[in-house]
This record gives sequence, C-alpha cells and structure tokens, in this order.
Amino acid sequence: DGAGAGASPLAGFQLQRVLGDSAREKIIFLHGKVNDESGSERDAVVILEKTPFLAENITDVLHGDPAPQLQMSNDVYSTYSLRPPSQLNEIKTTLIFPATEKHIKKYLRQEVFLIQETGEDYRNITLPFIESQSFSLQWVYNILEKKAELDRIVYENPSPTDGFVLLPDFKWDQKQVDNLYLIAICHIRTVKSLRDLSSEHLPLLTNILNEGQDAIRKRYAISGSHLRVYLHYQPSYYHLHVHFTALGYDAPGTSVERAHLLSDVIQNLQLDSQYYQKRTITYALRADDPLLQKFRDAGKC
Amino acid sequence: DGAGAGASPLAGFQLQRVLGDSAREKIIFLHGKVNDESGSERDAVVILEKTPFLAENITDVLHGDPAPQLQMSNDVYSTYSLRPPSQLNEIKTTLIFPATEKHIKKYLRQEVFLIQETGEDYRNITLPFIESQSFSLQWVYNILEKKAELDRIVYENPSPTDGFVLLPDFKWDQKQVDNLYLIAICHIRTVKSLRDLSSEHLPLLTNILNEGQDAIRKRYAISGSHLRVYLHYQPSYYHLHVHFTALGYDAPGTSVERAHLLSDVIQNLQLDSQYYQKRTITYALRADDPLLQKFRDAGKC
Repeated sequence: DGAGAGASPLAGFQLQRVLGDSAREKIIFLHGKVNDESGSERDAVVILEKTPFLAENITDVLHGDPAPQLQMSNDVYSTYSLRPPSQLNEIKTTLIFPATEKHIKKYLRQEVFLIQETGEDYRNITLPFIESQSFSLQWVYNILEKKAELDRIVYENPSPTDGFVLLPDFKWDQKQVDNLYLIAICHIRTVKSLRDLSSEHLPLLTNILNEGQDAIRKRYAISGSHLRVYLHYQPSYYHLHVHFTALGYDAPGTSVERAHLLSDVIQNLQLDSQYYQKRTITYALRADDPLLQKFRDAGKC
Repeated sequence: DGAGAGASPLAGFQLQRVLGDSAREKIIFLHGKVNDESGSERDAVVILEKTPFLAENITDVLHGDPAPQLQMSNDVYSTYSLRPPSQLNEIKTTLIFPATEKHIKKYLRQEVFLIQETGEDYRNITLPFIESQSFSLQWVYNILEKKAELDRIVYENPSPTDGFVLLPDFKWDQKQVDNLYLIAICHIRTVKSLRDLSSEHLPLLTNILNEGQDAIRKRYAISGSHLRVYLHYQPSYYHLHVHFTALGYDAPGTSVERAHLLSDVIQNLQLDSQYYQKRTITYALRADDPLLQKFRDAGKC
C-alpha cells in the first residue's frame, strides 16, 4: 500500500474524484483514500491551490529555461506557454485526514442550471412552489417591528407603503468600507420579489435608491458613484429587499444571471408597469434546489 | 540586442513595473520594454496567469518528484508545499507588443466610478469620444476575413447582415470546459455596441444565441442551460460581439454593472426597438479612463 516513506499521508493519497474546482481561482478540491497507521483505508480531502505571483520573482519566471513556446500570434497580440522552474511555481496543498462526511460535502460542488422563467412559468410553477414553502419571515418582521437589531438600523423611512429600513447585511463585518454591504428591507409585506413589482411601487423604489444612497454617504462617506444597488432574482427570502454593495467589492451574487440593478428596474417599470409580470427572467438553480425539480416535472428544462 | 534567439519579443522583455495583479485569480499584469527589429525600445505588456488544474494530471502533480514538504500540522489539517514538474504547471502568457498607452492603461489598477449614461449622454459625450479614438479593429477584421486565427473558428454563419464567427476567447486555454469562454463576432461592421442595436438586429441576435449554443453543444458537449450568453457595455472594443462563458465559471466581466444577457437584450428590443437608444445605462469606469474625464467635463458626474 501507500507510496512514500510512510512520513506523509499525502504521499499515500489515492484520488477518488474531483469534488469541485475554480478555474478562475486555480483551485481544486479532491476526495481520496489514504491508509492510516493500522492499514485501514480512510477518507481524505486534498485542496490544491496555485500560488499568487510574486513581483520579485517575475524576471526569473520569464527568462528561465526552457524558453517560452509561441502558441498564437495575431497583430500585436501573441500567447505563449511558459514552464518556469518548479521552485518558482509552487502549489499550496492542504490535507484533511481523516476527513468526515461533513468535510467532503463542504467541498462538493453542485452543478448549476440556467432557468428561463416565463411569466406563465412564474404563475404556474414558481409561485405555487414559494407558497408551499413555509419559510419563516419572522426575522424580517422582527427588524421592521424593532423587536430585533434595533441598534443596527442605519436609516429608516417609516412610511408603511413607500418606506424601508436600511441596515448592514449579516455578511459584512463592518470593519472596513471596501466590502461594504447593506440591505434595505421595505415595510410593505405583500411584495415577494421583482415579479410582484408594478409602477405603483415606483415611489418605494426611488425612495430606496435615493435615501439609501444618501444615508450611506452620510454614515460611511461612500458616494452613490461607488455603490452597486440591486435586487436578486431569485431572492434568498420572499420579502422585497435591495442590496447595496461597494462597487470595488466583487461581492457574491452580483453576476448578471442573478442581480438586477435598481436603476434598471425603475426604468423598466416606467416603460411598462407589467414589465416584470410578462418578462422571461433568466436565473441559475443548483442541482439540489427543489424548484429545479418542479421545472423538470413540468417539462420546462 | 535583447536575450534569446531573436525569435521571440518575449525573450527580450525587460520589466518596468507591475500594473496590477489578483492574488485571488493568480494573474499579474506587467509593463516592460522590448527592442523592436530596428533596435528601438518600445512598450510591451505581458500578462501571466497560472493555469487551472486538470483532473487527469492530478495524480502526477501529487506524486511527482520532489515529494511534498510538510509545512504545518494541526489535528486533521496539514499543509504542504508542492513543486510539481514544470510541464504540469504551465503559465499562460500573453504579450502585447508593441503596446500603446491605451493597452497599458487598460491593465493599470484604478479606482472605479459608476456612470449613469442617458441616451443623450451617449450621443453628446460617449459617441464623439469613441469616434475620436482611432483604436484599431484590424485584429477583428483579420478574423472575419480569415487572415488570422482561421484554424480557431468553431462556427460561422456567413451572412453579411445576420451572420457571425464564433471562436475561443484569448483568455481561454481550451484545456477544459470548466472555464469555457467563446466570443461571437458579427460580420456587420456598423454596430459598435448595445447602443446601436434596434429591432432590425433581432435576426442577427437570435442567430448568435441559437446557433452559438448549438455549435458549443456540438463541439464541447455543453448545453445552453450551462452557458451564460451576454454583451458588455462598455465593451472593450467597438465592434459588436457576444460572450459565451460556462455558467459554473465565475468569469471576469459578468457582473451586473457590465454584463447584459443576450436573452434580455432580445426581449427589450422586441418590447421597444429604440430601447437601447433611450435607456440610461449604468456602468463602471476606471479613474484614468478618458471617458470619465469627458463626463466630468460635462458636469455629469
């Protein structure tokens, strides 16, 4: 069994499968087996991550042996394959051994699927699904009724129809404004998402945009030209809320298949009050999302 | 002079400074000098990016020489430094030579500002600015005229009005479909961006969406429900093109303040042929972008 000098469980790692990876971040998560000291086979997780470039090594990386191999050339652009000496190109390696089922699940990637939800799909599939889920909004109501998080409120417009509460998102540690993240939660309780909006909500939406930006400028000295203001569809809970994140912060959930800029939503409702009832909306669902199964059952994906 | 066999300008690259980098993405942007054929020193930009892991190489990466060096051990967690053979750990290298000031600025890290560009702003500020810039599209025309990258074309619809060429983006190494990235470049040369689109372009746009997805399914076995299909505004060059990226790949430029889903663009043009002439479009500009200065000069931000 096991390769190597018996010193390192990593040397005996036998790959079973790739749990997940990120081509953008050059990281991969692996599940494998390693024999423990008694010779029993046990689960292990290995995480490999390429290391960032170091400015001081760049010249050695570029001009080492072997020379870069030209791959493609067009006008002023050319690409090469470069194979620098291995000591300049390390891989950060983490071993979890023995690994539990929980470790393995943590790194197991779920496949995602793009849904094209028509207005009809919303009414026939998504809305009944949302209504069948009794996911509690009590924590939202606690905020709106000042029963919780009272000290966290940054701004409030108390109007029951056009008002909202602005407060830091749970994900923001509030240590620095680089990753600023606040949420505006509207007082009205009948708007589940983008799909329920019509032109009657324009006063509410413009209040959130204008007063939210003002409040953030006053409290955090961040101007509107440095804020990304958007809704999610699908949202993570079905009570209308708006996200405010620092523009320079590549926050999760800002990609085009989930985020809808509030300024675009306002313009679309000005153009057509029923825009979000009629529109086919594109979004991604994870393989284990029960809503995906509803779309499959309906033969829609 | 310069190093190397005179074959590669990259061999003669002399580093001046780091323009920017991303520790998360393991990429670095460099400005340097290279002597051209006449011996004159000219600007060059080099982009180094570590390559994503390939599942089929993992065992060789883990079990090659030298053995992984243990760095830290705590309970079930341990970390190692791994130095795989250099042929298993390539660096994707892009050279832009000779590089213009605009190329250099493109990669220089900068503060970003959100712009709200009205239709009037586009006509009064942005369009004159674009027209004043003589940024060459020769590399695009080389592709469309089959003078370059002919072997890279994945699909073509040859119609001069409603046709396009589909090929892998420079940024994709084509080693795995996880970070799949293709570009559809339309044959028509009069559409600079989203702003020039009207309902007359619906046949072109639906061709790109439908035929592009079909071609990618045939070539790479990736279905439309795993593809993000979108335009950039502002684009990086003013000849209409559409991005196709793997949905699971968190590609740069997919955030809501830059990306516009092609399916949304098509619906918006069906709703209103002049949608993109009238619409206020939100996008981010870097502090050194001369277009930002134009907006400031006009008192618009």
